[in-house]
Amino acid sequence: MPILNEISALVKRIPTSMQEILNERVIQIRAEIQQGVKKPYKQVLNLSSGDPQALSLKPLTFVRQVLAGCLYPTLLHGDTLPADVRQRVQTLLGECAGEGTWSHLETHGIRKLQHSISDFISRRDGVASDPDNIYITNGSTAAFMTLLKLFVPNGSSLQTGVLTPEPSYNGFKFALAAQGALVVPYYLREEQGWAVQLDELHRAVLTAKGHCNLMALYVINPGNPTDIHPVLSPGHVQTKDSIKDVIRFAAEERLIIMADEVTDAHKNMIVCVYQSCMIGEGMEFCSYKRALMEMGAPYSNMVELASINSISKGPMGECGLRGGYVELVNFDPSMKQNIFKLFSAMQCASLMGQIALHVMVDPPRPGQPSYPLYTNEIQSNKREIINNVRRTLGVLNSLPAITWQPVMGGMFAFPRVSFSQAAINYAQERGQEPDVMYCLRLLEDEGLCFLPGYELGMTEGIYHIRITLAAQEEIMKEALQRLKNFHLRFLKEFPALERPGGNTNPDPLTATASSVMGHADPNTPLGWRH
Amino acid sequence: MPILNEISALVKRIPTSMQEILNERVIQIRAEIQQGVKKPYKQVLNLSSGDPQALSLKPLTFVRQVLAGCLYPTLLHGDTLPADVRQRVQTLLGECAGEGTWSHLETHGIRKLQHSISDFISRRDGVASDPDNIYITNGSTAAFMTLLKLFVPNGSSLQTGVLTPEPSYNGFKFALAAQGALVVPYYLREEQGWAVQLDELHRAVLTAKGHCNLMALYVINPGNPTDIHPVLSPGHVQTKDSIKDVIRFAAEERLIIMADEVTDAHKNMIVCVYQSCMIGEGMEFCSYKRALMEMGAPYSNMVELASINSISKGPMGECGLRGGYVELVNFDPSMKQNIFKLFSAMQCASLMGQIALHVMVDPPRPGQPSYPLYTNEIQSNKREIINNVRRTLGVLNSLPAITWQPVMGGMFAFPRVSFSQAAINYAQERGQEPDVMYCLRLLEDEGLCFLPGYELGMTEGIYHIRITLAAQEEIMKEALQRLKNFHLRFLKEFPALERPGGNTNPDPLTATASSVMGHADPNTPLGWRH
Repeated sequence: MPILNEISALVKRIPTSMQEILNERVIQIRAEIQQGVKKPYKQVLNLSSGDPQALSLKPLTFVRQVLAGCLYPTLLHGDTLPADVRQRVQTLLGECAGEGTWSHLETHGIRKLQHSISDFISRRDGVASDPDNIYITNGSTAAFMTLLKLFVPNGSSLQTGVLTPEPSYNGFKFALAAQGALVVPYYLREEQGWAVQLDELHRAVLTAKGHCNLMALYVINPGNPTDIHPVLSPGHVQTKDSIKDVIRFAAEERLIIMADEVTDAHKNMIVCVYQSCMIGEGMEFCSYKRALMEMGAPYSNMVELASINSISKGPMGECGLRGGYVELVNFDPSMKQNIFKLFSAMQCASLMGQIALHVMVDPPRPGQPSYPLYTNEIQSNKREIINNVRRTLGVLNSLPAITWQPVMGGMFAFPRVSFSQAAINYAQERGQEPDVMYCLRLLEDEGLCFLPGYELGMTEGIYHIRITLAAQEEIMKEALQRLKNFHLRFLKEFPALERPGGNTNPDPLTATASSVMGHADPNTPLGWRH
Repeated sequence: MPILNEISALVKRIPTSMQEILNERVIQIRAEIQQGVKKPYKQVLNLSSGDPQALSLKPLTFVRQVLAGCLYPTLLHGDTLPADVRQRVQTLLGECAGEGTWSHLETHGIRKLQHSISDFISRRDGVASDPDNIYITNGSTAAFMTLLKLFVPNGSSLQTGVLTPEPSYNGFKFALAAQGALVVPYYLREEQGWAVQLDELHRAVLTAKGHCNLMALYVINPGNPTDIHPVLSPGHVQTKDSIKDVIRFAAEERLIIMADEVTDAHKNMIVCVYQSCMIGEGMEFCSYKRALMEMGAPYSNMVELASINSISKGPMGECGLRGGYVELVNFDPSMKQNIFKLFSAMQCASLMGQIALHVMVDPPRPGQPSYPLYTNEIQSNKREIINNVRRTLGVLNSLPAITWQPVMGGMFAFPRVSFSQAAINYAQERGQEPDVMYCLRLLEDEGLCFLPGYELGMTEGIYHIRITLAAQEEIMKEALQRLKNFHLRFLKEFPALERPGGNTNPDPLTATASSVMGHADPNTPLGWRH
């Protein structure tokens, strides 16, 4: 009998990822096609992931040129790389421990990068930021994993609980489970554009009482276009007043705020270059730190805030490089040594991710040779997503039994699908949720992969599918055609109501959804100023 | 009062890293020099780290060219990159989810890379390797951290214990502490060339009884030139017989073997290209897996083995890219799903590290354009280290109160220093260990940073300093001159015995050390066949 005959309870608690199951099946089907297995399609289209580059959205040339130059400084001779790229590379190489190479002397990150991030935050918020409070990590998941170690386990006999929005990306929930903490869900209301509601937070706190030791509140802002909060058809941006309410709530309940503020490169660009950051129609991005500092004492010097950002999303979309940071605000200075020790024990973050992070917080400036291309590429990626939103809404509009919330911006569509009782029964017989069954069949029949809303933690009886919008035009068109074909066939097999909302067992939170939801105007899908 | 007013017990248990403290001081001193503070030196030399490139050892051109090409495929047009680099880039890009870019679809690593690693292991060991048992990670620390989650916590009221060699790199001990596991030390004997001794393993097991739930045995082989086992002046390579003894021991005691087999690029090269792997004089590297399979049943299908490798060490030395893998052998297949789930929850490893890993396990072959340069660069880096060993031993030979074990190979010297009672008292008054005091003074007085043996877990009363040998000639010469100046001044202040061994409170394990230790011949410091 093997020694490890039972997996630790901790690992068992990590939910199985539908995303992983679907990805594995995508790989299998691709292999089957290569082996000559007959399928009604030549190619699998995977529009389930939150990885912008997986669907051929182009990486930003400046980022890649700087990385190539840092790795292979021979490129600095001659004019293979533009002058400002060469200059950036020289500056970054000057920060290395070795000469012209890359080493991992400083486990908390490149010193200069800490300062650049701190400058970026100061510019964004109009509030000072201390480079010593910035820790650089292998992306946002690594940042959360490490942070959670500070207070999980906590010595209490009860598990540590963290208030967590649903629906949301499962990565954070995986991280909580992997650290032995408990997800205490608070539900975002579809009919309110997935905004955080104070009464729902209070309700969630009550559910936690006696079951766990509630220590932190996880918030995601903006709710787009990060895949951290993938319910992107709404793509909620929190207002400053709402943020202040949440901060007061956290102070009353004595909760640490873990803010997932993966401000995407659009916004970073705008923040950096124009000192303003409009992304949604009439919506101004406000960081939790800025709101906190505006509130003044006692909040501004009392509420503990960890704000996390990463290079994975937006037009930069460098998921594969792994880069992120966390800024700690109001953490007890006496713990600094221990926090530093913890982050150091995790080893330094990938230097390639760190370099990309440097470009993200300090992009090319007007007048520099790379500025026009850099901004054009961002605009072009943005345009591609906007066109895909239009295309997608156009097709969804033509399909019965599908509705959605108006899109404010982002990288995903998240339409709601209505299933007939027959379809629900059919799924149940297979031990599947209806949306999972729908996505699995879509993948088998049409070679098209979307993510079921189930993965993101939907309330029972409410079903969504998540469609990645960051795809090249031809891929998107083909995907929508396949969706249309499948959906109409599916409805012939399982005729459904014209509008969702008549689902069985609706949750009280979303019971009124059907009354406010409807078909949006495909011509004004985004609030971005383009 | 802040909510997080006390750090979790788990983080508290992570030991403070002398390496980090020294690095911070190095950075401070460098800043002081820049600010015009007068010092008796113009430049700080940091020879404390295990990062080969930090001391200007050159990165391998082929690795960097492949990385640059993958990041910026425009370089594939024209002849900026050699033909085999371009071909490798094309192959790797073909493995991406996106076209010509990099995304993180497969959280367990690039599929092709899993196969390449599996091929490499099969060639090395002459035993089949299943790609599905290979998990790619952000370096070896990440691999250990994730693995430990499988059995820590274990549901037992006792903490999970792991048998861990001392002295050894503190990274693994940090990982254990960060996961809430307990280090159960077994001491490597200096006078036996730091070899693992069965009687010492049995002694360590007895110390653990009743204190913890012993689950695993951590072994490091070869003991060089990884910084995982940094006692590199001995640089022990385990014999196949010794490995089999250890495997039998693990089977009897029902322990999972976690083998740190960071086979460096020399050996990988030799393994890959020549199917042989001599590194020490008369020493043949044998992997734990190979030994295990040779033993046959019941061992070969029973003993659970996790073997870890990384790109950080040897002439590749790509610490900053973060790349490593673990192969799991004999783990219960029923747990595969959970293990996969766990590694997936950690997110994919840095793709740049994965690409470098690909080159490490499948380097340029004879006849390919890059082969001559690749092998020359490795030989040159190797020669530089060998010359540094000669230089270092030459200087150490001239210094009183210093001895060492014969060097078999590697990246560090680890001489033992004899301190007088006066020096010990002086250190105690400052709350420091004598070797820590020595290194701190060396840094302040001479701007030279070495790592005290204390950091690596030495027994009480035995003091060492660790000197990185992977440095450019000029840096090494300058460092040795500074060491000489300091050491002679130090001995004037604190006169010591000519030979160490007369230390107070010697540990029984090493009490006989002085009788077998002596000055080695600087002309035959390494067993490498050069």
